[in-house]
Amino acid sequence: MTLTNTVCRLASRPLGLPKESDWHIDEEPVGPVSEGEFLVRVDYLSVDPAMRTWMNAGRSYVPPVEIGDVMRAGGVGRVIDSRNPQFAVGDDVYGTFGVQRYAISDGRDVTRIDTALAPAPVHLGALGISGLTAYFGLLEVGRPQPGQTVVVSGAAGSVGSIAGQIARINGCRVVGIAGGPGKCRWLVEELGFDAAIDYRAGDLRRQLKVHAPNGIDVFFDNVGGVTLEAALARLARGARVVICGAISQYNATEELHGPANYMQLLVARASMTGFVIFDYADRYGEAVVRLADWLRSGELRSHEQVISGGVGDFPEALLALFRGDNTGKLILALDGS
Amino acid sequence: MTLTNTVCRLASRPLGLPKESDWHIDEEPVGPVSEGEFLVRVDYLSVDPAMRTWMNAGRSYVPPVEIGDVMRAGGVGRVIDSRNPQFAVGDDVYGTFGVQRYAISDGRDVTRIDTALAPAPVHLGALGISGLTAYFGLLEVGRPQPGQTVVVSGAAGSVGSIAGQIARINGCRVVGIAGGPGKCRWLVEELGFDAAIDYRAGDLRRQLKVHAPNGIDVFFDNVGGVTLEAALARLARGARVVICGAISQYNATEELHGPANYMQLLVARASMTGFVIFDYADRYGEAVVRLADWLRSGELRSHEQVISGGVGDFPEALLALFRGDNTGKLILALDGS
Repeated sequence: MTLTNTVCRLASRPLGLPKESDWHIDEEPVGPVSEGEFLVRVDYLSVDPAMRTWMNAGRSYVPPVEIGDVMRAGGVGRVIDSRNPQFAVGDDVYGTFGVQRYAISDGRDVTRIDTALAPAPVHLGALGISGLTAYFGLLEVGRPQPGQTVVVSGAAGSVGSIAGQIARINGCRVVGIAGGPGKCRWLVEELGFDAAIDYRAGDLRRQLKVHAPNGIDVFFDNVGGVTLEAALARLARGARVVICGAISQYNATEELHGPANYMQLLVARASMTGFVIFDYADRYGEAVVRLADWLRSGELRSHEQVISGGVGDFPEALLALFRGDNTGKLILALDGS
Repeated sequence: MTLTNTVCRLASRPLGLPKESDWHIDEEPVGPVSEGEFLVRVDYLSVDPAMRTWMNAGRSYVPPVEIGDVMRAGGVGRVIDSRNPQFAVGDDVYGTFGVQRYAISDGRDVTRIDTALAPAPVHLGALGISGLTAYFGLLEVGRPQPGQTVVVSGAAGSVGSIAGQIARINGCRVVGIAGGPGKCRWLVEELGFDAAIDYRAGDLRRQLKVHAPNGIDVFFDNVGGVTLEAALARLARGARVVICGAISQYNATEELHGPANYMQLLVARASMTGFVIFDYADRYGEAVVRLADWLRSGELRSHEQVISGGVGDFPEALLALFRGDNTGKLILALDGS
């Protein structure tokens, strides 16, 4: 019996928020598994802000998804057929399988995951790329010292919520910036942030003055735009700004908004540094051990918001992300065949 | 006999380019020299882009010059009266004496200069704050390696012309960005830059592609604005952007133009770092020794463009700087009493 795959392909490059017509949802037979390959049934798809950047043409940290390609996505699934000695039927695996129900892989960049350590969705959250991004971005790029003030934007998102907790675990004072009182309460009451600022309530700059009275030593930025500017205006001497993302800019249809007050980097003798998690691939192991320890001890909480649906629900899930509907890691759990 | 001082005071905070009415030029008697003080006849005034930033209210790396204050300026002069045992009549000194012909000082932040080492104006150029800024900004913040590509904006200016030469001395490929074919020829033919780009000729991005085919490893920025954006678009992996100044923005009357493509820092895994030369004060000595060695050997050339005039000519000298009239360090040599 031939399996039928459901595949989400990029139909056109969006201007602003992706529209329905920017996607093609196709049904197609699953191809044969060649020698050295294996077949994965994708059960969980990672839904990430950076996906929007992959849809644009032009130089970035990964090549763009081409028109007609399966949309790129990280996912977790199970091996259901294998002609590769490294992967056996029944193995749970993580890989960049794309937005589709079935993926054929040659094993490159695929890792086996241990669902005894944590449920499969956590391997897209705290134990996956989100957790690793938070870990290396905060500790290696941000280099916070105990007692310093760390401010995280997009703090209720997948990376931000973990970055803030790692800062807390490392003895920092942690302030989160998020949208809405519910998320802010969650950050303080559930995740142990010292304070949270609702940027929708207005006057972010004054709020940062209140909650970072001695200035910001590390700003972990997922948002960009006016949020970045507000943080730059409050940097402590020698501060590190970690450029992780810029969700406020990904759907911009006019010229991007660069930080008008970037000269505050001079005033504060501060640095602003970008990083790409793939550069730390040879150290993922050490990070996962520490993240798993923190999860086990309860010091770190991984929160996944799981939407159930089909491959055809991916476009809407991506829009939910840009509306800020999610708290923690947004995951699309694929059901049906 | 009482000496008469000529003093340039800030009359109002300019909007855009400073106007004549933003200044007061006053004649006033030189006050008495108290115990512990000495009197300096200021012979050379340093005319610097950063001066424009000191005229604005608000947080910066130095307090703003207040309305009615003598305009802040570095200068070189001679001690002509002294009640301070550290400074004798006849000493040549550097200090922040302000835009005036005579200054009374208690010796704080005043250094004796050796005019046998180099003529007095050079102590405002390569052996002064300009040279020190280039030295520490390039070597400590930019950290160029031999064989790497260093691009300097404002390359024909006081700091840029020295930063580029230090990069050359350190075995880097050096590309300067300057305004006009004359300055570009000077950079290549006189200062030994590998290439120079005339930004006024248009299409800076394409020119950078030609002259930095493998990307920019260190960008030493004195200009900001679209120049900074063009450089960000060509960063090599792991590049360092040194934020030294932003002359294109200092007279902006609308919102400042932040680098819209700052996310290239992420793509290139690059950093952008600001610095203030005063932080290196305890290492000025070591730098001056090296700069003087390079000057002596002919590897480094200090070029000062000296305008002769009175204190009342300072406002026009500052405007000349923003027109880009100068090549190298702009200095106002004060004549008359």
